[in-house]
Amino acid sequence: MRDFSNDCANLALNTATLGHMLEGRGAGWSPEQVIDACAERGFGGLVLWRREVGGRAFEIGERVRAAGMQVAGLCRSPFLVGPLAFNSVSETVEDFNAAVDTAAELGAATLTVVAGGVVAGSHSMSESLKAVTEILASVAPYAERNGVKLGLEPLHPVYGGDRSCLVTVRDALAICRNAGSKNIGIAIDVYHVWWDLALEEQLSTLGDVRILGYHLCDWLAHTKDTLLDRGMMGDGVSDLRKIRRVVEDAGYDGLCEVEIFSEDDWWLRDPEDVLDTIVQRFKTVC
Amino acid sequence: MRDFSNDCANLALNTATLGHMLEGRGAGWSPEQVIDACAERGFGGLVLWRREVGGRAFEIGERVRAAGMQVAGLCRSPFLVGPLAFNSVSETVEDFNAAVDTAAELGAATLTVVAGGVVAGSHSMSESLKAVTEILASVAPYAERNGVKLGLEPLHPVYGGDRSCLVTVRDALAICRNAGSKNIGIAIDVYHVWWDLALEEQLSTLGDVRILGYHLCDWLAHTKDTLLDRGMMGDGVSDLRKIRRVVEDAGYDGLCEVEIFSEDDWWLRDPEDVLDTIVQRFKTVC
Repeated sequence: MRDFSNDCANLALNTATLGHMLEGRGAGWSPEQVIDACAERGFGGLVLWRREVGGRAFEIGERVRAAGMQVAGLCRSPFLVGPLAFNSVSETVEDFNAAVDTAAELGAATLTVVAGGVVAGSHSMSESLKAVTEILASVAPYAERNGVKLGLEPLHPVYGGDRSCLVTVRDALAICRNAGSKNIGIAIDVYHVWWDLALEEQLSTLGDVRILGYHLCDWLAHTKDTLLDRGMMGDGVSDLRKIRRVVEDAGYDGLCEVEIFSEDDWWLRDPEDVLDTIVQRFKTVC
Repeated sequence: MRDFSNDCANLALNTATLGHMLEGRGAGWSPEQVIDACAERGFGGLVLWRREVGGRAFEIGERVRAAGMQVAGLCRSPFLVGPLAFNSVSETVEDFNAAVDTAAELGAATLTVVAGGVVAGSHSMSESLKAVTEILASVAPYAERNGVKLGLEPLHPVYGGDRSCLVTVRDALAICRNAGSKNIGIAIDVYHVWWDLALEEQLSTLGDVRILGYHLCDWLAHTKDTLLDRGMMGDGVSDLRKIRRVVEDAGYDGLCEVEIFSEDDWWLRDPEDVLDTIVQRFKTVC
């Protein structure tokens, strides 16, 4: 297991943690301010959102690299299926490819992919996952040609209905295998898997599927809102060390990305303090 | 798979579905009114709550049986561990035994057991489950002597922090084995397991552990509140038929208990209509 106590070379910031820049949440910092603040603290990388990057993907990517960091990823694909997806598969594919284009311009290693919820009328996770697999298989070649890996992220089962019929690493690995593209890997987020004591067992079947991302936050004991009340590492009930050990034992050696959606707490704080807290917690409890 | 299309002999009502009698929620029916209304419709049983039964357990149990139904269960044990548990194990055991006494007086076949959340400071589901196992092992003999089975119910992972460190059938089976008492079995609730495509695989390791209860409701695609916004069977995204098939294939042949906490919808409706809807859905979509 890697030792993070001395530096932040393996730490990445998902900019959602500062309340999504340019959205009137958090301090409303510009991408440049976020880049500089992370670089000053020795972060290894950044993960940005499409809405923050706008038409400036290339420029922002260059700026991140000039500051000595990587663009570890871009959030995110459209929901592929379910009640929050576009009305047609062709619209979904179009938006998916636009996300790939932005990731490529930005120089992001990975595009995070969210499955979307259960297909209306199907009453079936299995059928919905099949639909996800088909769409992924169809978009993977374009992403591969553009040098963008697809990081398929199982979400917490609480999102099963509308945001993600994909809720376990087990099912994500099945999709990776069935979609027939080596360009698809998985992303593992503490928020989504912290409860799953079968994680190690599931990762033992990883085979040649790659873990493309590892996301940090914490699950608060009394979570008030399952979307926007994530905790800072150490403030919740997750076994952060154990989860990281399991993920690293499965071969992951990339950046650890802090992603905290926290409308009533961290998004209201001074972003300098938020970043300092992240650094301190990363070195001590992750 | 059993055919439910012709009668309700295998249908039980969990009285929470009518807003917990005697609580000012729902129509505020008396236990007698609920018993009569269910008996009229041919229900096979009732599951009651401690707070509804008060000191009248024996009397109410007799009344249920006189109406031709069973008391399928009593809800519920105190949280065994975690932030919502009593301050001491001795208080927990005392309250647990009081619940067993009520179940015995009522003639309830099973007492539903909830684990409680992650033990404060442990940051560990595994350690918390060990504590649950220890307490269960210590209380099981008293329940057995009183003829009350303990139905250990894994809850949805969204409750992992505060209400249940036990979130999968897999982990429930491990507790049953480790607690060393044949008096402990598991309860399976659609709301808690609907997302878990590994359910069949997990139940294949059932061994001599018994399934003591099967609970019906539905997971609404856009769940507004994870505690009090459960759906009526057929209104959500769960694969009800498949889940029942898996549970019956694992040997379950008992009552199917409808348990719908629904503050803003079903609890506001006329209980006669709620019961009629349950009967219709039970015969057609479960």
